[in-house]
Amino acid sequence: RINGDRLWDSLMEMAKIGPGVAGGNNRQTLTDEDAEGRALFQKWCEEAGCTMGLDQMGNMFARREGTDPDALPVYVGSHLDTQPTGGKFDGVLGVLGGLELIRTLNDLGIKTKHPIVATNWTNEEGTRYAPAMLSSGVFAGMHTQDWAYNREDAEGKKFGDELNRIGWRGDEEVGARKMHAFFELHIEQGPILEAEGKDIGVVTHGQGLSWTQITVTGKDAHTGSTPMPMRKNAGLAMARILEKVDEIAWSHAPHAVGAAGHIDVYPNSRNVIPGKVVFTVDFRSPELEVITDMENRLRVAAEDIVDEMGLQIEFEKVGGFDPVKFDDACVSAVRNAAERLGYSHTDIISGAGHDACWINRVAPTAMIMCPCVDGLSHNEAEEISKEWAAAGADVLLHAVVETAEI
Amino acid sequence: RINGDRLWDSLMEMAKIGPGVAGGNNRQTLTDEDAEGRALFQKWCEEAGCTMGLDQMGNMFARREGTDPDALPVYVGSHLDTQPTGGKFDGVLGVLGGLELIRTLNDLGIKTKHPIVATNWTNEEGTRYAPAMLSSGVFAGMHTQDWAYNREDAEGKKFGDELNRIGWRGDEEVGARKMHAFFELHIEQGPILEAEGKDIGVVTHGQGLSWTQITVTGKDAHTGSTPMPMRKNAGLAMARILEKVDEIAWSHAPHAVGAAGHIDVYPNSRNVIPGKVVFTVDFRSPELEVITDMENRLRVAAEDIVDEMGLQIEFEKVGGFDPVKFDDACVSAVRNAAERLGYSHTDIISGAGHDACWINRVAPTAMIMCPCVDGLSHNEAEEISKEWAAAGADVLLHAVVETAEI
Ligand SMILES: NC(=O)NCCC(=O)O
Ligand SMILES: NC(=O)NCCC(=O)O
Repeated sequence: RINGDRLWDSLMEMAKIGPGVAGGNNRQTLTDEDAEGRALFQKWCEEAGCTMGLDQMGNMFARREGTDPDALPVYVGSHLDTQPTGGKFDGVLGVLGGLELIRTLNDLGIKTKHPIVATNWTNEEGTRYAPAMLSSGVFAGMHTQDWAYNREDAEGKKFGDELNRIGWRGDEEVGARKMHAFFELHIEQGPILEAEGKDIGVVTHGQGLSWTQITVTGKDAHTGSTPMPMRKNAGLAMARILEKVDEIAWSHAPHAVGAAGHIDVYPNSRNVIPGKVVFTVDFRSPELEVITDMENRLRVAAEDIVDEMGLQIEFEKVGGFDPVKFDDACVSAVRNAAERLGYSHTDIISGAGHDACWINRVAPTAMIMCPCVDGLSHNEAEEISKEWAAAGADVLLHAVVETAEI
Repeated sequence: RINGDRLWDSLMEMAKIGPGVAGGNNRQTLTDEDAEGRALFQKWCEEAGCTMGLDQMGNMFARREGTDPDALPVYVGSHLDTQPTGGKFDGVLGVLGGLELIRTLNDLGIKTKHPIVATNWTNEEGTRYAPAMLSSGVFAGMHTQDWAYNREDAEGKKFGDELNRIGWRGDEEVGARKMHAFFELHIEQGPILEAEGKDIGVVTHGQGLSWTQITVTGKDAHTGSTPMPMRKNAGLAMARILEKVDEIAWSHAPHAVGAAGHIDVYPNSRNVIPGKVVFTVDFRSPELEVITDMENRLRVAAEDIVDEMGLQIEFEKVGGFDPVKFDDACVSAVRNAAERLGYSHTDIISGAGHDACWINRVAPTAMIMCPCVDGLSHNEAEEISKEWAAAGADVLLHAVVETAEI
């Protein structure tokens, strides 16, 4: 069993970096706070006897040697970056759970055949730089590094420049590493495990996602002196499209969700009819056909709305991945570990995207979930118990040790 | 007649300060560009033999002496600040039209009994600091200076601090000046004069305005892993309210307009269901009962929407003024001037708010409007012709000279 107190202390220590305004964290990717969090993780890993690798996307790899020099490593990990108003556990639990498993093996003097590598993937959240899971995506060959380097944040700062600026761009080629397996421990971010009273979610699948960024162009004009029939109100068109997004998602519920979290209105002045609105529609489902259907219906509905209003519209797919099925053997290793340790468990589909969803394409992969209070995540009030965290890390330890072989 | 070329050259010279991105201007109130525009206006006024007064709200008063030391001055003017993506004429024409009238009187060696004062009112636009017409409002006793100083921009910078920072806070008590009359020349910002082929709008009334800032509070949550029935999507509630705003305004058309130009979504991340949205509804009508009706219906409709969705809502009135009736004698002076000069004219109601709307409460006031292309304003593409500008300034000259007496 891992040391639950030590894991919790590390989580609380990391949470001091980039504190939020309401008890959570704002440690967005490639900020100074991100750099500080990385440095702390590196220090802890080196203290645990690991050597740190760093690739050109800033992905961090803390390696504990195995006994067989020819054996591929078993990877674990998640991400240390957070939402602007994020929680203390989303991502962080998976990274520090990996560190805790290494510390525990050290304590017990256990040597594994396969090396074990605890990973921190850069920019999982995707807030500053869309899409989410950017660097695990480059690792898995889903995006080119060049494309990723040229992603811009809201202020026009490029990913590549910001990675250099914070000093965490390594030399290692991205995706060159081969993995024996990858395990990611993560909080559920949804309500199912808590509602069912389960300690552990054995993640068999992940929902697919589609992010469509929509730009509606109307005409800036005076809110007072422009008669109603002359208006080209891009904000009103957006409102109508948002209603459709909700309607389309509900039409597939409970097998789909939909919303827009990102909305920018221009010029955003009280007495100017919005001439331009840019917003991103997030659709998800475990079924690819459902995602495709929602995307298609959104386009048709949105085009009808703007046509009727005499406005223009552009669609750009700024993120997306197909539904994921995790590796049977890895999933069994997770289920067996929960069983062996006596934790209650259930199979579950991940509602969120995770680095594991991309790594699954290049290595046998599975995920372990632990409950979170009220299913709340992407909120500073995100909360888990010390026991839930420890149970998740215990299962991670056992699944990894089974896979890495003693 | 005024010198149309000189007026136009001054307009183009001023437009070089705080250029926009599409041919217009971004010279928002209390920015460095605002300070630069003020300095240029002051230089021109001093070259025209005026003395500059400056009050504690940064309102500028360029005075040309009259022949009767006991006569109250006739005031003219408007504002030099612009929208973030504003035009070159909105406000500026009224200020530089006032300067041009002084220059013309100098050229012709005409002395008036009453002094003439060309004014630049601070923060007419209201984008950086709501409400609009803030400083003419303090002058007219509608707001306290203290309240105005504590208005905050989106970055939390206070009006009073920014006024100090740019160095344009004067010593003079605000509103201490007494006026014989006030005339404001302004572009129409609407389509009526151009459509009717009129040179001059004789402004008899102004629409009233109501700005209600609405804060809807839901719950930040993950867009992927939060089931549809558990969502508290403040962005969706806003969308539904915006549709109601449109419906309510149309129900009174053509005697009312309504829209929301300002919308801020929090935390504005693609994978976070908006937990908070702040936006401002702008309703206008020439009839007070219509404004009141729209405000009331908005509250009821918005409360119904959020109640049904289980969200919270707050309303704050951040700006507003009642419909205005301008002074009969001043309006007649404008109409007579247009008549005498042979310009085609029509009586018109101002769709926008203007400093004249507040000054009307403390002095006999009227406005002169000239057409603008396609009725477009609060847009960098705002355009007028040199002839329209000259006609407007001619009418200003004659109305003022009639009122200031030779
Ligand atoms: N786990 C997580 O919140 N990842 C961000 C990507 C997503 O939006 O699903
Ligand atoms: N003239 C003008 O655009 N003033 C700003 C105040 C308003 O929104 O009407």
